Parts: sequence; structure tokens; C-alpha cells
Amino acid sequence: MNLRSTSRLIFKGVKLLSARAVTVRSMAYSIEERGSQYSLDYRVYFKKGDKYVSPFHDVPLYANAEKTVYNAIMEVPRWSNAKMEISVADKLNPIKQDVKKGKARFVSNVFPYHGYMWNYGALPQTWEDPSHMDPNTNCKGDNDPLDVCEIGYRVAKRGEVRQVKVLGCVALIDEGETDWKVLAIDVTDPLAEKLNDVSDIETEMPGFLAATVEWFTKYKVPAGKPKNNFAFNGKAMDKDFTTRIVAETHDQWEKLMKNQHSDPTSISRANTTVAGDYLVSQTDAAGVVATSPPPAPDTPIDPIVDKWHYVQ
Amino acid sequence: MNLRSTSRLIFKGVKLLSARAVTVRSMAYSIEERGSQYSLDYRVYFKKGDKYVSPFHDVPLYANAEKTVYNAIMEVPRWSNAKMEISVADKLNPIKQDVKKGKARFVSNVFPYHGYMWNYGALPQTWEDPSHMDPNTNCKGDNDPLDVCEIGYRVAKRGEVRQVKVLGCVALIDEGETDWKVLAIDVTDPLAEKLNDVSDIETEMPGFLAATVEWFTKYKVPAGKPKNNFAFNGKAMDKDFTTRIVAETHDQWEKLMKNQHSDPTSISRANTTVAGDYLVSQTDAAGVVATSPPPAPDTPIDPIVDKWHYVQ
Repeated sequence: MNLRSTSRLIFKGVKLLSARAVTVRSMAYSIEERGSQYSLDYRVYFKKGDKYVSPFHDVPLYANAEKTVYNAIMEVPRWSNAKMEISVADKLNPIKQDVKKGKARFVSNVFPYHGYMWNYGALPQTWEDPSHMDPNTNCKGDNDPLDVCEIGYRVAKRGEVRQVKVLGCVALIDEGETDWKVLAIDVTDPLAEKLNDVSDIETEMPGFLAATVEWFTKYKVPAGKPKNNFAFNGKAMDKDFTTRIVAETHDQWEKLMKNQHSDPTSISRANTTVAGDYLVSQTDAAGVVATSPPPAPDTPIDPIVDKWHYVQ
Repeated sequence: MNLRSTSRLIFKGVKLLSARAVTVRSMAYSIEERGSQYSLDYRVYFKKGDKYVSPFHDVPLYANAEKTVYNAIMEVPRWSNAKMEISVADKLNPIKQDVKKGKARFVSNVFPYHGYMWNYGALPQTWEDPSHMDPNTNCKGDNDPLDVCEIGYRVAKRGEVRQVKVLGCVALIDEGETDWKVLAIDVTDPLAEKLNDVSDIETEMPGFLAATVEWFTKYKVPAGKPKNNFAFNGKAMDKDFTTRIVAETHDQWEKLMKNQHSDPTSISRANTTVAGDYLVSQTDAAGVVATSPPPAPDTPIDPIVDKWHYVQ
């Protein structure tokens, strides 16, 4: 199968960063949904062409040879509330909905925001090592792939794999764990040419960075939790700094896959393309999907999810 | 047909305003959609039971005998962008999408808001007379029914007829015309008991009134228009004042229907229940609907509608 030519239908050669043409690698990913959306049995499995892949392990972090474009797995479309995320523990790492008090978790609307204010997702092949003390924040990692906020205008579809430029990051301290939030923009967004570092965000989107910090500070308060804190007083770090954080968490992921980590807990390393001890066959992968709950109609969302909460 | 018992299934006796029980009148309204949603031929006709009605003329303004509860026709659900409104000119006054430069009009997202920030609609049997100089604003009316912003937590469905309490209003001056925006809340909203006047909004929903004024001030700027102004420096007027404005525009509507207005332009007064010169039969009404475009699949929305605009 000629994936490159297939992908061209979706992502034509993308012009990026000054006048230099950068060809983004073939990205013919698709998803297979199982179970009932907005219920605990919902699962989103990933395929590349007709092969099952893990979005955590098999989707490459870098989307071009120059390592200037990254893949980003879209978990929560902008303006939605269902807290969906790659399951690090489940085999093939499907996206599933987070659970709170035994129910599917929806994030509250904190006035004046509606749901998530970016397309929220994860950078594949990265891992925030929970045994690693981050020298920047003096906190350990949260055992997840690196989170990414994609700030382009198009509302993402869940499970979409976008190609993004990294612009900066903020260092959320979420219940005592370091939880970097990478700020990035879809390379095909019309604004992408103008956004080359974190300072450009304030120029083109005034108030957006402050709103991002406010959002993360307050978003768990309606659920009865305290406000979150940020390292660096909430200052957004620049592109160079962020690029290093991404590379470090990519390195931590590589060590994880090469068994150079002591005792990683609740992580499935099963993959279908990365050489190593955890490679599984397509037959096994198809078996994982086939034994998951069959597709079912959506579970209705309680209208209370639409309530606006006022956090001072 | 026993509409009262039918309606009880939908709106059980609603407790309102201190301990006094108020029974809201039967409201078994439904809609019939024609044409293609998000195209210029889209129409939403209204029925009560199996009879066609005009949402402008046939739905009563007051929903209880005490005149403390109003009906409100929902045109634009919160967090949506399609500018839908009751057509005062078309026979039976269906909801249709406003037109801009020959295309279906979508209101821009002004950061940090997503689409409309309330359930937006109109109060039936009211009319802002374009020949009447409002002594409060020194501007004439905009030839439409009175606009209403319903601030309860439930996202409305287009064409829904909600029963609301009036709390206050702001006096937008939109391109030189008086355009009152009534603030109201669904009587079945859990917050309705606590909201009895405009000042309660700031107590229960801090920042919401200022955001409302900001929203109306800026919402046409991305489309190349100037900022809107407000009478009273943007101050929200109280419930008593608003109740009088509603009663006055109801009076103007009554005069319109009784031919006591000189030269009303582009208004269809056709109705099926209000006695007067413009009563039409159900056969005629059904003919109007039958000759409108047949139902068709939705017209896709251009993703650019999702863009956030930054207005300083």
C-alpha cells in the first residue's frame, strides 16, 4: 500500500517556517470507535492504513526529518467537555473517557469559557516519568504523555492526528505533579506562519495566554478541588525551552520502551511498529479490539454539563 | 384535544417567586423544519398541537394570569453562531437564517466567548415600533419583536418556547436604532428562585452582566462594523423598568394588529388565533408551509465560523 500517495490526498506538501518547504510525513491515520460514547466502555482505537497502532507508542513524535513538526493526538476538541485521554494502561492505548466517582468525567465550564479552550491532546512517544524529579519544577512527572494545546481555528475531531509547530509551554503543577502543557499550532492554520515563538501568541491573540493560565488554574474548582499552581509564576516558556522539554520526555519514553526504567506502573507498552520487547502482531492487536465492547449508540449527556461555573 | 393535560407532561406546576405556586399555561408547541438548515431556504414553522401558529403573533406574551411569567421564543441556542430569527415579513413568521452578502449569516466568536453567550430569542406579541421615538434612548425601534437573553444553564433548542422570568434589560443602540435586550431566566432553572431582579445576576453570576455588554459592544466588529453603543452607559436597568418596556412594546404590537399604526413596513400580520383583520385559516396556513421548500439535509458550515476574533 502506498501510504505516501494516500496521505497526499489529506496533507499536501505544507509550507512552513520562512520560505523553506518542508514535506510532512505520511499520516493516514484513522480511528475505530468501540462501546458507547460518553460511557465508561467507550474506546477509540487507532489504525494507520489497515494496521492497528498505539497512539502512544507507534505514532512518531516527529512528523518531518528536520524535527520541526510534531504529531499531536487530538483527545478533546475545543469547546467540548468530555475528558477523553489516551489510556496508558490499556493495551494499544485507546482513547477513553476519564472516570470520576464511577462515572464518565466531564470538565466544568468555567465562566467565560466553554469546555476546553483549545484542541487538547497528547504528543506521542513522550512520557512524563513519575520517578523523575523535574529540575525546573521540583515535581515528578504525571505518568502520562506530554499534553498539548493546539490553538488553530479549526475544531479538531477526536482521534485526529495533527501536525503542529511547538511554540511554548506552561508548567502546571497539578496536585503536586509536573504537568507540562505544550502550546502548539496546526501547521496548516493560516496563523501558523506568524506564530514562531511564544511571544507571537500575545501579539496575534491578545489575552489568550493569560486565559490559558486562568483556565488551568480554575478548571477543577467546580469539582471541589483547589486551584492549580504553575511553576515560573505562570509565565509561558519559549520555544527553545519547550523543544528541550519535549526531547527530554521523548528520551524518557525511549528508556521506558528499552526497559531502562525501574518499575513503570500501569503502563502498557504493547505496540505494533516499534522494535522491542513489547511488539505485538496485528492478529493480537485485532484480538484486543475485537474483545472490546461492540459499537453502541451514544450515552446521553446530562444537561448539567452545560452549566457555567463562576470561580473568583 | 386536551392541551392542558398534554402540557402537564412537559411543564409540571412550576414554583416561582417566594412560596406562591404559579401555574404556567399549557405550552404544547412544536416546530416543523423546512428547507436545508444553514441555507437561505431554511424555515422553522410553529405549531400548537396540530394547528399552525405564528410565533410572533399567536404565542401569548404572558404565560400566566398574574403576568409574572413570559413566553420566550428561542432562536439561537447558547454557544452557537447561526444568526436565526423570526421573520417578521414572511407569512406565519417562521424562524429563518439572517442573510449577509447573499449568504447565511453566522455571528463571529469574539474571544473569549463562543457564539452567543445566552439562549437568544424574542418575546412574542411585542414590537419595537420603528416610527416610535423611545424617550429613554432618543432612538426609534428596530421593527422587530423584543429580544431576550435567557440565562439559565440548559442550552435551548431552536424553536423551543420557554417560560421565563424577566430580570432586567440593557439598551443597545444598534446602528442608530433602539434594540432592547431583555435579560430573563427559565422559570424551571434551579437559579430562578434566587434571581428576582437585575442586581441578583451580579451576585449569583459575577461578571456576567459586564460580559453581556462587552459581547454586544463587540460582536459586529469582526464583520467590519463599528462597536455598538448602549444607552445609560451600558448600565443594566432593573426589573420594574424592564416590565414597563415589555408592556409598552406589547402595546405597540396590539396597535399594529388593530391597524392603529401608520404604514408598518415589511410586516406580515397573518395569524391563526388572534381575532382581527389578519386571521388566516388552518388550510391557508398549511398551504404556506406546503409551498415552502421541502426538508433537505443540512448545508455544511464553513469551519472558518469557528475562528476566534480578538477585539480590543
